[in-house]
Amino acid sequence: MTRIAERTPPPLPAAQIELLVADIGGTHARFALAELSANAAPVLHDIRKLAVAEFANLPAAVLSYTDQIHRDLPDRAVFAIAAPIRGEEVRFTNNDWRIRPADLPSELGIGSIMLLNDLEASAHAAASLESDSFMHIGGPEGSLEKAHSISVIGIGTGLGVAGILRDETGSHILATEGGHAGFAPVDSFEDALLSHLRREHGRVSAERVAAGMGLRPFMEVLAAERGQMVADRDDKSLWQSALSGSDPLAVAARDRYLLCLGSIAGDIALMHGPGPVILTGGLGARLAPYLAGSGFMQRFVAKGRYQDLMQTLPVKLMQHEEPGLFGAAAAFFRRQCPL
Amino acid sequence: MTRIAERTPPPLPAAQIELLVADIGGTHARFALAELSANAAPVLHDIRKLAVAEFANLPAAVLSYTDQIHRDLPDRAVFAIAAPIRGEEVRFTNNDWRIRPADLPSELGIGSIMLLNDLEASAHAAASLESDSFMHIGGPEGSLEKAHSISVIGIGTGLGVAGILRDETGSHILATEGGHAGFAPVDSFEDALLSHLRREHGRVSAERVAAGMGLRPFMEVLAAERGQMVADRDDKSLWQSALSGSDPLAVAARDRYLLCLGSIAGDIALMHGPGPVILTGGLGARLAPYLAGSGFMQRFVAKGRYQDLMQTLPVKLMQHEEPGLFGAAAAFFRRQCPL
Repeated sequence: MTRIAERTPPPLPAAQIELLVADIGGTHARFALAELSANAAPVLHDIRKLAVAEFANLPAAVLSYTDQIHRDLPDRAVFAIAAPIRGEEVRFTNNDWRIRPADLPSELGIGSIMLLNDLEASAHAAASLESDSFMHIGGPEGSLEKAHSISVIGIGTGLGVAGILRDETGSHILATEGGHAGFAPVDSFEDALLSHLRREHGRVSAERVAAGMGLRPFMEVLAAERGQMVADRDDKSLWQSALSGSDPLAVAARDRYLLCLGSIAGDIALMHGPGPVILTGGLGARLAPYLAGSGFMQRFVAKGRYQDLMQTLPVKLMQHEEPGLFGAAAAFFRRQCPL
Repeated sequence: MTRIAERTPPPLPAAQIELLVADIGGTHARFALAELSANAAPVLHDIRKLAVAEFANLPAAVLSYTDQIHRDLPDRAVFAIAAPIRGEEVRFTNNDWRIRPADLPSELGIGSIMLLNDLEASAHAAASLESDSFMHIGGPEGSLEKAHSISVIGIGTGLGVAGILRDETGSHILATEGGHAGFAPVDSFEDALLSHLRREHGRVSAERVAAGMGLRPFMEVLAAERGQMVADRDDKSLWQSALSGSDPLAVAARDRYLLCLGSIAGDIALMHGPGPVILTGGLGARLAPYLAGSGFMQRFVAKGRYQDLMQTLPVKLMQHEEPGLFGAAAAFFRRQCPL
């Protein structure tokens, strides 16, 4: 988390604080205004979703948002960003924008700006939401409140990973780039998938198989086994076929993908504890109905001597409609009033 | 971390506290007495190393330690254990002891006992030691003090992994079983290694290749390529040949092992941040002189689009002679006086 303040913003009033919040991913930039008050969850309004590709940079997108809502912006902002927040320039992994944090206050005319990783924001959201905000996916029912660690996995254009660590001092958020760890195949099909992706990319990260871009290589390997070809369609269209059931090859690829996602989710959990796993992200939400009938949970727990331990861990889906925006506001709130 | 108290121990005196500390691994159980005072690092004395295989259980080993030091034990103890600390019974991954935490106070006659994972203890040690306690291995020189996260990797009988998360509230320790995440091969040799290990074990974890047990399969795959056989010797003897340079096959396996260890260390760092990496463990210390001349750092940073970021991260070796024992004492101290 990085904070850039050009001038001291007005002191925090006891009553209510207004923030500009944004959630900037590989494909979409979401904006909202958030109202924070002392004893309630942040409230979002004036939510807008813009296509990153339609704007040259972040200031142009903020200007468009301001025009759309016909409002002056508050003097505080929190931006959740699908990139590691380090150094003098933030580069997105999955889009072409560049952000120089030191220049943002003058570019945007906003006095105090906090930047954080988008999954870090989702983890702040997860640490702030009530238990009825999580849909049960697998493992034992029950609450997340007693877990020492929780892994938050965002499945979308990229594969985002964050952790929540709980100790006697409260909940602490770990921002990570775990989606870029190496892909660990567990059977001969996944060996073939790894070889296939290695020919194209050299090194193969977990993100290459577990994010939105992952369905195509599964289809390509299955198609090669069957002497078929994969139609020249974009990832979005392939996923539509996979989820609607309209294309048998895409459906078979989806089932294989869900196995692989289970293995990767289990490995992420082991790296952070293991503790419960919370899935989020646009694709994560769309996949949720398919997880129960798939081999996802079987693979999640298939960790050899650790199988008994893995079977004690719940897997949940975060059901908030705007986890990044809510999480950006929650991160600000939690920083003012750490729990 | 689990605390079991049968009776309330005497109140903490302002002056000095004495603890029994233990570090129980797959092969050895180390014991010491630790003196804690308010403004100084814990001091260890009466250090003894016992072979786990010579004792039926932990109480028998504690009894032997008490006999050896001719002292009554203090009424507080902290045990660092090479196992996940969960549930009613703690089972070691790499030895046959079982511990029922609830029974320990009466079995040992000690009023208050804290159990923690051995790498969790090492991470407490790392968070407590001065910068001159770390030997520089690779990456940029410089201190660890500003890092948001640090990964602590223990290389010994097993592969232990813990994290240190730093935020505005201080340093927080993440106990993990990350060594049991899946092994991610990055080239055709490692593909062959994975196939070889999969035939024997089914699922293959990072620990299978990166801990003490890892050298043999590297030798077996290299020997098969060369039409040779691996002599029927134990892991300790194979490592002696690999480190002394007396056996060309063992040396070639060691070089391949160090590449693989670099990839795994980089993946662990990505899962926790990425942030700096601190190596520890008996084998880690013995490998340190070989890391600089090996491909370890090249593989550590070889994370595709994340290479620039990985190149900003230092890798260090923790040089304390008893990181587990010191860490057990440091964990107790940090819990009394969180930083």
